[in-house]
Parts: sequence; C-alpha cells; structure tokens
Amino acid sequence: MKPERLAREVVYQSKWVNLFKDTVKFPNGFVIDKFHLLDFEREAVAAVMENAHGEVIFARIPRYTTGLAEWELPAGGMEVGESPLEAAKRELLEETGYTSTDHTLIYTYYPMNGQANQIFHIVFCKAGEQVQDFDSNEVVEVRWFTRAEVKQLLKEQKILDGFSLTALLLWLQN
Amino acid sequence: MKPERLAREVVYQSKWVNLFKDTVKFPNGFVIDKFHLLDFEREAVAAVMENAHGEVIFARIPRYTTGLAEWELPAGGMEVGESPLEAAKRELLEETGYTSTDHTLIYTYYPMNGQANQIFHIVFCKAGEQVQDFDSNEVVEVRWFTRAEVKQLLKEQKILDGFSLTALLLWLQN
Repeated sequence: MKPERLAREVVYQSKWVNLFKDTVKFPNGFVIDKFHLLDFEREAVAAVMENAHGEVIFARIPRYTTGLAEWELPAGGMEVGESPLEAAKRELLEETGYTSTDHTLIYTYYPMNGQANQIFHIVFCKAGEQVQDFDSNEVVEVRWFTRAEVKQLLKEQKILDGFSLTALLLWLQN
Repeated sequence: MKPERLAREVVYQSKWVNLFKDTVKFPNGFVIDKFHLLDFEREAVAAVMENAHGEVIFARIPRYTTGLAEWELPAGGMEVGESPLEAAKRELLEETGYTSTDHTLIYTYYPMNGQANQIFHIVFCKAGEQVQDFDSNEVVEVRWFTRAEVKQLLKEQKILDGFSLTALLLWLQN
C-alpha cells in the first residue's frame, strides 16, 4: 500500500522546510512525475491550558502568512530532543508567561497530508503560576477565555488558525 | 497590526506551491530576516457528505507524504474559477462516484498559518446517487461510516489527516 519514491530532485533545504520534487509510484502503478513534497524536520505542538475556573489561555499573534492578528492557542515548533509535552510547557511559558502541569498528549495528526509531512501534536494541561511576561516579539496580548466564549468564537468562525481550531474542537468534546 | 514585507527572495515558483524567503517587519518593530513563506495559489475543500441514514462517506487514499493509506473525507484543490461548493461537488464525484446536493460552506481556516497561507474550506452536503466509479488512480476504497463509527475512529486517533479531523469534529458538534 505504500507509495514508492523512484527519484528525487532537491529544490531547497533548510532547517525550516525542505522542498523536494519526487517521482512517486503509487501502489496501483500510477506514477506522479513531480510530486512537490514539503518536508518538515521539526514537529509542532499546540496547548490547551486550563486554569482553576476551566478557562483556556489564548495569545494574540500577528501572522505574516495571513496578515491577521487573531486569538490562537500557544503553539510552536519542537526543538531537537524535546517531547511534545516538554515543547508545550516551553511554548506556554514563552507565549503566556505561565508555568503548566499535568500535560497530556491528546492527538497527533498531519495538518496538510496532501503536500506536507508536517506533524502536529495537541497537548492539554493545567495552568501553574504566572512567573514572567509573555514574549512581546511574538505575542501582542494574552487572555483567558471561558468555555462559552470559546464556543462563541467558533460559532462566529473567528478561530482561523487550524491548529487552534482542531485543538479547541477536541477540548469541547471533553 | 499587519506585518510588512521589506524584501523578497524567490526560491521556487510553481502552480503547486511557491517558496519565498521574505524579510518581514512586525508591528512592534521586530524584524525576521528570512521568513520562509509557503505560498499557495489554490485553496482546497473537504466535504462531509451524509446519506439518508446519516452516514458519512470516506475514501481510503494512499499518501506519499506519510506512507499511510487511511480513511479520509473526500478533499482536494479548487480549480481556477471554482467556488468551494462547486469544488466539493466535483471532488465528491471524482473520489466517490456520487452526486451531491444541498452544499453548505461550514468553515474556512488556515491549516498551517505559521508557515503557509494555504486556505481550507469545509463543506457539508447531502448524497445524491452513485453515477460512476471512484477514481482508482487516487482512491483505493470507498465506504459509508455511521456516526458511532466516526466517533470510534476519532477516539482511537485513526483520523490522521487534519482536514478530515477538523471537518468531522465540526460535524459531530451539530
């Protein structure tokens, strides 16, 4: 059942993303001559962190890709040697200033499996204490949202970041 | 609030994906020298198509990106001039052999807004009739799943395609 690589042209390589043009033979014999594969070496994690009131922390992040600055869950790429749980803890501290506990890996998936092998992990956890400021190079604002507010954001289609969207839909299932 | 592009190096251009290395100035003055932007000209659509029994159609698709052949919702890139609803109808016909009716655009989002401007649309619709075979170059199997089966797939984390995952979580909210 596994598609097989017959040839590869390296278009670009970096620690952020590799772009390959591969000749791929599918299990039924079908051949794609130039499959554009976006190869990601670093996996990524997003965190749903709840406080004692059952509220979830969000960060507002200006995105160059979209020209928007919407509310998102804290998220980011995993460093070499880091587990998803460790990365979630680090990203939460950087993007919100809070420590966190009781990390659980909830789901692992491929956000764009048509073109990319990027892996996304979703972690749920509990809030610890605020011990520093958030990183103002990346984040412009941090806020807790109630469950009702999260539902309203989704209803109004205001969560435009897929990573946050998927994680919050999983959280609302709980 | 909008990040501003100061310079661009074109690494690669194609109808599948463009790769740019941009110098970007963020609203707070922070500058990223080489922002790797994956620029997608084509948006994409995934469809949740229900039959009269409330079952949803899935296609099993071998993926070169992941080396897996899992159950996914019918999905694909939009052609030039196509709306999300038209694209959903076309993809359903190609990947399942079924006509479809009552298309509704449920959600639009960015699956990887950290690196890519790719836009994903989720469409819900009703099944018409099976009028042809599915495209066996892309799909190996087609099957209807009950609501309980969909819940079980999610519980076992067997939906690994993010597009399907997000669409099914939205569907289960209904």
